[in-house]
Amino acid sequence: MTGEHSILATAPAAAILRQLAKQPYDLTAEGALFGRIPRYVCDNGPFRLLYATERIDEQTLAALQALADECQIIDQFKAMRRGAVLNKIDGYASENRQVLHTACRDIFTAEPAEPKATAQAKAELAKLKSFLEEVATGAVSAPGGKQFTTMLHVGIGGSDLGPRAITEALRAYCLPGRRARFIANVDPDDTVRTLAETDLAHTLVCIVSKSGTTLETRANEQLVRERLQATGLDPGQHCLAITGQGSPMDNPANYLRSFYMYDYIGGRYSGASMVGAVTLGFVIGYQGLLDFLRGAAAIDWLAEEADMRKNLPLLMALLGIWNHNFLDMATLAVLPYSQALHRFPAHLQQCDMESSGKAITTEGAAVGHKTGPVVWGEPGTNGQHAFYQLLHQGTEIVPAEFIGFLRSQYSEDCQVDGSTSQQKLIANMLAQTLALAMGKADGNPNRHFFGNRPSRLLIADRLTPYVMGALLAIYEAKIVMQGFCWGINSFDQEGVQLGKVLASRILDSLANERATPGGVEKDLLAQALCPPKLEETWT
Amino acid sequence: MTGEHSILATAPAAAILRQLAKQPYDLTAEGALFGRIPRYVCDNGPFRLLYATERIDEQTLAALQALADECQIIDQFKAMRRGAVLNKIDGYASENRQVLHTACRDIFTAEPAEPKATAQAKAELAKLKSFLEEVATGAVSAPGGKQFTTMLHVGIGGSDLGPRAITEALRAYCLPGRRARFIANVDPDDTVRTLAETDLAHTLVCIVSKSGTTLETRANEQLVRERLQATGLDPGQHCLAITGQGSPMDNPANYLRSFYMYDYIGGRYSGASMVGAVTLGFVIGYQGLLDFLRGAAAIDWLAEEADMRKNLPLLMALLGIWNHNFLDMATLAVLPYSQALHRFPAHLQQCDMESSGKAITTEGAAVGHKTGPVVWGEPGTNGQHAFYQLLHQGTEIVPAEFIGFLRSQYSEDCQVDGSTSQQKLIANMLAQTLALAMGKADGNPNRHFFGNRPSRLLIADRLTPYVMGALLAIYEAKIVMQGFCWGINSFDQEGVQLGKVLASRILDSLANERATPGGVEKDLLAQALCPPKLEETWT
Repeated sequence: MTGEHSILATAPAAAILRQLAKQPYDLTAEGALFGRIPRYVCDNGPFRLLYATERIDEQTLAALQALADECQIIDQFKAMRRGAVLNKIDGYASENRQVLHTACRDIFTAEPAEPKATAQAKAELAKLKSFLEEVATGAVSAPGGKQFTTMLHVGIGGSDLGPRAITEALRAYCLPGRRARFIANVDPDDTVRTLAETDLAHTLVCIVSKSGTTLETRANEQLVRERLQATGLDPGQHCLAITGQGSPMDNPANYLRSFYMYDYIGGRYSGASMVGAVTLGFVIGYQGLLDFLRGAAAIDWLAEEADMRKNLPLLMALLGIWNHNFLDMATLAVLPYSQALHRFPAHLQQCDMESSGKAITTEGAAVGHKTGPVVWGEPGTNGQHAFYQLLHQGTEIVPAEFIGFLRSQYSEDCQVDGSTSQQKLIANMLAQTLALAMGKADGNPNRHFFGNRPSRLLIADRLTPYVMGALLAIYEAKIVMQGFCWGINSFDQEGVQLGKVLASRILDSLANERATPGGVEKDLLAQALCPPKLEETWT
Repeated sequence: MTGEHSILATAPAAAILRQLAKQPYDLTAEGALFGRIPRYVCDNGPFRLLYATERIDEQTLAALQALADECQIIDQFKAMRRGAVLNKIDGYASENRQVLHTACRDIFTAEPAEPKATAQAKAELAKLKSFLEEVATGAVSAPGGKQFTTMLHVGIGGSDLGPRAITEALRAYCLPGRRARFIANVDPDDTVRTLAETDLAHTLVCIVSKSGTTLETRANEQLVRERLQATGLDPGQHCLAITGQGSPMDNPANYLRSFYMYDYIGGRYSGASMVGAVTLGFVIGYQGLLDFLRGAAAIDWLAEEADMRKNLPLLMALLGIWNHNFLDMATLAVLPYSQALHRFPAHLQQCDMESSGKAITTEGAAVGHKTGPVVWGEPGTNGQHAFYQLLHQGTEIVPAEFIGFLRSQYSEDCQVDGSTSQQKLIANMLAQTLALAMGKADGNPNRHFFGNRPSRLLIADRLTPYVMGALLAIYEAKIVMQGFCWGINSFDQEGVQLGKVLASRILDSLANERATPGGVEKDLLAQALCPPKLEETWT
């Protein structure tokens, strides 16, 4: 590496923040939250962010704004949306690509930020619209002329987690009789058990791989095709390809339809491209899909605002950097108070940690400061009965991001003890943010709550397709903005290569006894492949 | 609090470990792994632990063994199993209970460690066996004399995560036609959407709450009962109660059957008690349930071994403490290479973080050192395509615990590129442990891998009921052993109380407009309850 270069070491605002971090705002002081809550609110699109329960004050916010300006976060964000080649490391071999995931939803204005990519997105959307109409009218139908009811989505990583999180979140909006299933893991049990629960005759299969060569997806595609054939079905009449133009999967002989993804959209940012759109459009319909894209597009434009107090993703990005880099908190808990978002933390885990898990700058120097935190979470109130003990009384300080909605999706509810379940859900979320911030002194040390544990609250009226699109775009923008601040390339993933190379070598030894592995691999295989077989003697 | 008392500050072994931590074993050095892999292996029951890829050597292991001895980990573990009152804080009000989750599977020997609790467990198992026979013969049947096919499990936290993780893991062993569904969240959408996919006429409902007063579970029970009635069914003929003797739920008028849980088993350790056993027994049958208990019991006895190199849970506990307390790693990733274990990390998150998220000793003093890490994870190979970028190249060092099995559960597979999916799965897991340890130098800084990122590998032949029982018991033992080393009470959860109190106050204001909340709560409600309503204008 070419020495160390740290924007957080050289930016004047960072020096101020380091000073301020020695005595951050004390949320546990008498009256500390008085009058503060209305002051620290930001509305963008359908979302409101409440951040009075962060350890910040006017000085901190001013310094964070200065840091954002010094790092040119918004300038870079605008450049990204307009087609700048930001997926690169200067002076070294790298992907060297544009970053245009926002273009695929920038379809609601006459003047898109990057017209060429948006035109390509519109072309794919037009293909999808017409395909969905054919499915609806029966022009494309299952054997015997019956309707297709199920979309089986086969992908992994970016081709799975985003689509899965989004589609699960919007299951309440499924067209009658429509549903989606997902297969990702190369674990054959994943595929076998999903197939056992799927009526293949009425199932379309959406195979997603940009390169067309992803090992897991190819293996699962083959398992699915074998099963289709064994059931007397023609795979070519069931399988759709979502892939790069010209990839090995871009072959009309093998697929009912192909939809294209482009190399300027990274896998983990591809939820609103054809990667997510085909399955989502099938289950909630094309109009629902458009609503989803519209929500995302609205946020993308609002995120160009330079004033952090009016820019919700920028505000979240900077509060995250304050907690992580200056207050030294290693993780971020994302806690949706919505069961529909149960896979959203897993999606964020990829989108955030694969983007920000970097140790060199875009110039190839060591970063010299911490980059991405570990992101994790489960829905509330479930989490309250699980790991919140550690949030309140543990020795690790975990900043928390709560996500909640005033109204439920199905509007079915019941009253117990004078309140509805939805009211209980909201009340619990609000209570947690206060408990974490304020704490509580107690003479019994085991009932003492430290407080000063920062959190923020992202709230909207109801989780609709539009709101889900906005939520996705908020996090995507937040993540790339943090990357701009840290001076890293948030768009590549060289860190996954070594494991692939080693796996391929070990696989050669495993699958082909003639191949002789090297010393360490040989030792590892010898020890790993013979665990105890006590089991049979016991059961 | 009464001053600070840190076993890790006073134990002589801890001083040695702090010295050793300044230069931990370098896994990236030329030949560092040579000859090491066979030396660092531990077999217990059906599992083998490979730990050569941890940053330890003979000196580290000797010091960790000394620490275990000085902290009397195994003595305390034995005392726990024999009924010592360990759930307490000396000198302060506390739960003051025994800790006997191991007793409920200690049923395969004539001399159980704590005969009274084991006798109570046997009595409940006998009730369950006879109930399951009645269901099988049709003596207990759905309306019209049909078989019950589905168990709808309603609980939250310890009454949900363990049973869910275990039952999901063993879905391959379900009796024909049998399945389980789960409801936990107070989010009404969770219940509504699960009920919409459940054929209630053929469904038994297992309601689990030790106190019989858990708010979420009561609300969900009511939603389920209302739906049963609306469908013309008699809730009393469908609902089972799993509760403490004498709780408000212990009422034969309202339930088809009751099974008891006892206050000496904490919720997060209750997976092998009636809390998990009723649902698991229903889906995989009583013999499968016994296999599961037998696997757990086998580990419980093996875990009494004082030599850490022969005691797998103790070894995992001490390696965890080495990484967390001495090498300063804030989190632990648990990465099962088995889709069947997809909810196991969520269970561990509760079992570990609720047990170890503590800041005072059992004497009520500040601990003076770190206690539980943040535990998180997703199945591989999915995770490889998601957050592994950060594991390999991020600035947070994340120790990883891999769990894998040589054979798949269903034995269905396919060959792609000359190997099966199961072989690909195993090869990838082994490759990751090597890649994290060894790293790789590269002239391109973006392709440089640091290495020296510790991991361990827990491997068994196949994930059967017996093996799942053993896996559960390994982690339960590991967690309590870490607690004994840290000097904390791993069995209470006072940290969840403040949120409950505040939630109840906020709920009063939300549900009852006459109730006037205080200043901060009023401000928070005013701001939180009116997010933007742009949505309607857009969609």
